[in-house]
Amino acid sequence: MKMAHLKKYALAILLSLASLNLAWAAADPLPSWNSGPSKTAIIKFVDSVTKEDSPDFVPVAERIATFDNDGTLWSEQPMYFQVQFALDRVKALAPSHPDWQTEEPFASVLKGDIKNLHTEDLMKVLYATHTGMNTEEFDAIAKEWIATAKHPTTGKKYTNMVFQPMLELLDYLRANDFKTFIVSGGGTGFMRAWVESVYGIPPEQVVGTTFKTEFVMNNGVPEIKRLPEILVNDDKEMKALEIYERIGRQPIAAFGNSDGDLAMLQWTYAGKGLRFPMYIHHTDEKREYKYDRESHIGRLDKGLDEAKAKGWTVVDMAKEWKTVYPN
Amino acid sequence: MKMAHLKKYALAILLSLASLNLAWAAADPLPSWNSGPSKTAIIKFVDSVTKEDSPDFVPVAERIATFDNDGTLWSEQPMYFQVQFALDRVKALAPSHPDWQTEEPFASVLKGDIKNLHTEDLMKVLYATHTGMNTEEFDAIAKEWIATAKHPTTGKKYTNMVFQPMLELLDYLRANDFKTFIVSGGGTGFMRAWVESVYGIPPEQVVGTTFKTEFVMNNGVPEIKRLPEILVNDDKEMKALEIYERIGRQPIAAFGNSDGDLAMLQWTYAGKGLRFPMYIHHTDEKREYKYDRESHIGRLDKGLDEAKAKGWTVVDMAKEWKTVYPN
Repeated sequence: MKMAHLKKYALAILLSLASLNLAWAAADPLPSWNSGPSKTAIIKFVDSVTKEDSPDFVPVAERIATFDNDGTLWSEQPMYFQVQFALDRVKALAPSHPDWQTEEPFASVLKGDIKNLHTEDLMKVLYATHTGMNTEEFDAIAKEWIATAKHPTTGKKYTNMVFQPMLELLDYLRANDFKTFIVSGGGTGFMRAWVESVYGIPPEQVVGTTFKTEFVMNNGVPEIKRLPEILVNDDKEMKALEIYERIGRQPIAAFGNSDGDLAMLQWTYAGKGLRFPMYIHHTDEKREYKYDRESHIGRLDKGLDEAKAKGWTVVDMAKEWKTVYPN
Repeated sequence: MKMAHLKKYALAILLSLASLNLAWAAADPLPSWNSGPSKTAIIKFVDSVTKEDSPDFVPVAERIATFDNDGTLWSEQPMYFQVQFALDRVKALAPSHPDWQTEEPFASVLKGDIKNLHTEDLMKVLYATHTGMNTEEFDAIAKEWIATAKHPTTGKKYTNMVFQPMLELLDYLRANDFKTFIVSGGGTGFMRAWVESVYGIPPEQVVGTTFKTEFVMNNGVPEIKRLPEILVNDDKEMKALEIYERIGRQPIAAFGNSDGDLAMLQWTYAGKGLRFPMYIHHTDEKREYKYDRESHIGRLDKGLDEAKAKGWTVVDMAKEWKTVYPN
């Protein structure tokens, strides 16, 4: 074979490989996931429940998947982002509350001294920043914050701290006719302000912690006021109960990252047929955060043991995620 | 023209008219509705919010429609069908509750003497028949009843006492990319047992009255137990609040038949843009029932005044519905 022919031949092979590679990239529904046990398990599960000749086939109407938010779809360190929202709101509201300069816990929050905030202090901050207004006003406040606020250590917008691999997983499941729900300890109203544009999850598929509300007539026009009382604290067992109350079907797949998600995963796993409970394990101190059994936020202890005992998928972020945040 | 040609000509015209008529019938999305103000208003509304060049166009994601159930999607006389379910269950359970022969209110229910049942008696009957079991067991009980029980006066199965014109309306809205929800004072668990097959409304789009629940481990398998306490009484203002909590968007169309639906219709009407609040008025004593301002069930009094004052659509069942129940 002449040199010119060899070159042509090699070029042809290279081009074929390149186009094969493109085809593979196009076919890979989870490009930010490294090949590994979690990616394999996800794809195997989805294939099993969607192929009509599969013994594990699940009709479209029953393809319900539930996702925790904090620590599962976006980061949650060094504090839940919604807490950061509340603290930022205290600062924004301070000019119209001169008494806060001396009144605790607001005085400490305004000084940036939040290390010693107790749960009841946090509740005061939450009520002062999340209630008293009507639902439309609160939605506008949350939307404005999420559009502008930056994370204290990464300097990123919070919506740029969502997990790229999980965005792909949401898309992949929906492409396979799953209905995706959020079931989170985060506030329902807070999340609804932005999750539709960021995750593609509509308001009616967001289940979270709720405040008491009141129907009031304002010059003949009805509005719904947010009141300073937690109605549902959507954590732990309450997640399973809220899935029953609001969705009414046991999910066939559920995704969480902490012991607060364990009841949701147990309730999912208990259903008949093939089920897919999955934990995200925060193992990546370089690109994100590393924490589990001892963390005060998103503690994963009992859940990690149960996942291992029952063979649930546990994602090792450091090893299994090619990228963490969207570019 | 010769006679033979004339005949051919006439036949051709007749055939064209017949096919035109068929085309018209196929195009009519609401065949059980007589031509009249309500049918005209419904079609005009749907056209206005779905045509992309319309000034009132509404994106698909915001096309939320909410329906009351009792008296709006099926009959509710001489008593709410779910109450009939509870009374039937008392009879079914009586053999294992010998004490009920003498214990009120059960003794009266077993004798068929229910005229003097007070609200607190009814609550005892509800708790005895709707709670204590797990959610799967309750679902099976409700499914079995709805599949077999017959209405005391019509002798029909209850699912044959749904309103054919409303089934067509549900289909018509969904064909125009509306998401249809039930928002009813009926029990969520009771309705979910049958509304998906009868109305095409999935469990996650059923909002109703709920009982408290508990997450319990039964030999390592989680189940959800129904407890004897009403958590949400989904009536009046609560309907608007539950729409906020569970759906998170103001509906653009809402359908009810009583003052219990007024807040839902007000909340719908208060939204920006074109809105469609509609009342079913029970005016048909021959084919269904005739009641409004004085009825102890499904009273329509304030709502009727407000509908007239605000120009909401009020359906005159006797005049506007060609048929009431499915054949």
